Amino acid sequence: MNQSVGVIGAGQLARMLAAPAIGLGISMKLLAEGEGMSANQVYSDVTVGDYTDESAVINFAKTVDVITFDHEHVPTSLLRKLQYMGVKVSPGPEALVYAQDKLAMRERLTKTLDAPAPKWRHCKDQNELVDFGNEIGWPIIAKASRGGYDGHGVWKIASPDEANVPFEESLDVSAGEKVQIIGEELVDFSRELSAIVARTPSGQAVAYPISETIQTDGVCSQTITPAPGLSVEQATDITRLALDIADDLGVVGLLAVELMQRKDGSVVINELAMRPHNTGHWSIDGAHTSQFENHLRAVCDLPLGDPSTRAPWTVMTNVLGGRDLNGGLLHLFSRDPQLRVQLYGKEPRPGRKLGHVTCYGEDLADVRERSESAAKYLMTKTL
Amino acid sequence: MNQSVGVIGAGQLARMLAAPAIGLGISMKLLAEGEGMSANQVYSDVTVGDYTDESAVINFAKTVDVITFDHEHVPTSLLRKLQYMGVKVSPGPEALVYAQDKLAMRERLTKTLDAPAPKWRHCKDQNELVDFGNEIGWPIIAKASRGGYDGHGVWKIASPDEANVPFEESLDVSAGEKVQIIGEELVDFSRELSAIVARTPSGQAVAYPISETIQTDGVCSQTITPAPGLSVEQATDITRLALDIADDLGVVGLLAVELMQRKDGSVVINELAMRPHNTGHWSIDGAHTSQFENHLRAVCDLPLGDPSTRAPWTVMTNVLGGRDLNGGLLHLFSRDPQLRVQLYGKEPRPGRKLGHVTCYGEDLADVRERSESAAKYLMTKTL
Repeated sequence: MNQSVGVIGAGQLARMLAAPAIGLGISMKLLAEGEGMSANQVYSDVTVGDYTDESAVINFAKTVDVITFDHEHVPTSLLRKLQYMGVKVSPGPEALVYAQDKLAMRERLTKTLDAPAPKWRHCKDQNELVDFGNEIGWPIIAKASRGGYDGHGVWKIASPDEANVPFEESLDVSAGEKVQIIGEELVDFSRELSAIVARTPSGQAVAYPISETIQTDGVCSQTITPAPGLSVEQATDITRLALDIADDLGVVGLLAVELMQRKDGSVVINELAMRPHNTGHWSIDGAHTSQFENHLRAVCDLPLGDPSTRAPWTVMTNVLGGRDLNGGLLHLFSRDPQLRVQLYGKEPRPGRKLGHVTCYGEDLADVRERSESAAKYLMTKTL
Repeated sequence: MNQSVGVIGAGQLARMLAAPAIGLGISMKLLAEGEGMSANQVYSDVTVGDYTDESAVINFAKTVDVITFDHEHVPTSLLRKLQYMGVKVSPGPEALVYAQDKLAMRERLTKTLDAPAPKWRHCKDQNELVDFGNEIGWPIIAKASRGGYDGHGVWKIASPDEANVPFEESLDVSAGEKVQIIGEELVDFSRELSAIVARTPSGQAVAYPISETIQTDGVCSQTITPAPGLSVEQATDITRLALDIADDLGVVGLLAVELMQRKDGSVVINELAMRPHNTGHWSIDGAHTSQFENHLRAVCDLPLGDPSTRAPWTVMTNVLGGRDLNGGLLHLFSRDPQLRVQLYGKEPRPGRKLGHVTCYGEDLADVRERSESAAKYLMTKTL
């Protein structure tokens, strides 16, 4: 009953999935989009191929028990074909579409769960976006329904004069679907939160504690777990919302719900991801069972592990750019023998996610300082 | 400064070394003694070759920054040759010989550290062994200086009539050195203990808490960490002894010192290992830094991580034989969401080490029951 899992996409998420697979005795295979990528370095079985190439994906899928993902860019039509062939795809295309397509997500979650959202409207052209802005007040946000990530595909539109921009900028849409534009209220949030749940095919589900996530220039830079100052009631409501969404959409594997918290404390959903998520990296060192292990357990239909924390506070900080990360460990491990580090084996480029560091402990200020200063040290630019 | 580590030997120790290498960004290469072995499944770079074949080992060593080991069977002369060629070997042959050769170990530790040992004598023939037994009283223990493991190469000699056995039984001595016979006192111990330390080339060293180890038929079946009822003074003395040995022998990487505790509380050294050790597997889930990560850090000359415990009690139980381990997880993970499991990806055979399970928590009786019953379930023989 030793299962084999095929991972499509060879970024750091695929890389970090490899570690818990060792203990679980799961055979991992990788479909990598190129040579020398982050995950290629740690998989014993690597196929290089294009994830939009039907025959490449199909031939890969035939060699494994279940397919899962490092990213959400595999075309829905191709995933449906795999299912039709009898390949297990987790999450399945019928769920994954709500992580791929922000318009489908808004429509679905409003309809089935009346889930909290910013004011939003599907705007077919510039005029409709102007009407929407005039109605709710400028500035507004415009989002591409597909293909966006880390701030790409999101525009802040200050006035009707700029309403043409989202319709003119072309986007790399790997999933091969037409890009729609969604107008959204610019939410004056006090902070961002993340709720991560894991769900098996039979519907068993666990929920990680809610994290506060700090974004810098549209990219996650830090998470604090649990989110400070969140009441038990609020945490329970958000957890229930995330579990309801996972159930409503039939997610198998992980679901990350990114939320914005308004100044009055209420939350609205920003977007969904169905894979291990940057805001869950803290769980490698801070939870009894990491998000990566629970994603594998879920896609293999194994009972899920305890997602609760092993320490009162866990802070994860991303390493965005930097130089000589391996050399940096000589200082950092001397300074802090409890520092936890994940390097992604990528070539440094300014702003690129090269790794993350995690600290945990009793005192939040101390834990945060240790995590933040370690990441900053690795991100030093000058020689 | 991304380092590459070459591991000789493809058992479960090599397999478990792969997990922390992912986070540390260390490139791992494997010299495996065959196809389809435990570690082959999780290394991206595998060479199949005989570890006693000079050219195979030399060609492998040329491709990495440092060589380390899954086992102690590589011939000393070959390791010396590697060093002469400028290859870093950690631990080096000048240290490793004391883990390979029990006679060399007894002679050295008695001479340099006056380390506590059972009464022992190098017996060149049957007559000398009889003399030794007559002198200290029967029964006695006879040990082969090289090639023994998990109870092989150790004989209990009840009377002078049996003193021929150790000299007649041939042993598979991979290290290509002549086997000597050591006579040893049969220690009437109350329990066995293990002290594991990690040491870098510069002599920085950390010590794991002392574990109690429970052996069944000469094979480790369970460890309890920290060893119950060990006083701070005793624990400190034993830790100091292990650190002194590591320093005296110039160990780079891990050193495991296996000890027997007499009924009066005093300890004697049983044997040494210089690699991740079965009695340190608890540290994957129970310590801030696992023995596998600290072994890698030590051989790469990185500062060592905190070896202290994350929970009051951690109990590791070996899975020795069994069937359908992967299927067994369906029950075990349902029963205990905090259960930690490492499967080694090996074909089941009666008594074979196929994996281990670890539990941690506040209450030793509870932790031990959870760990033991999980291992026993996986070891079920009948269908």
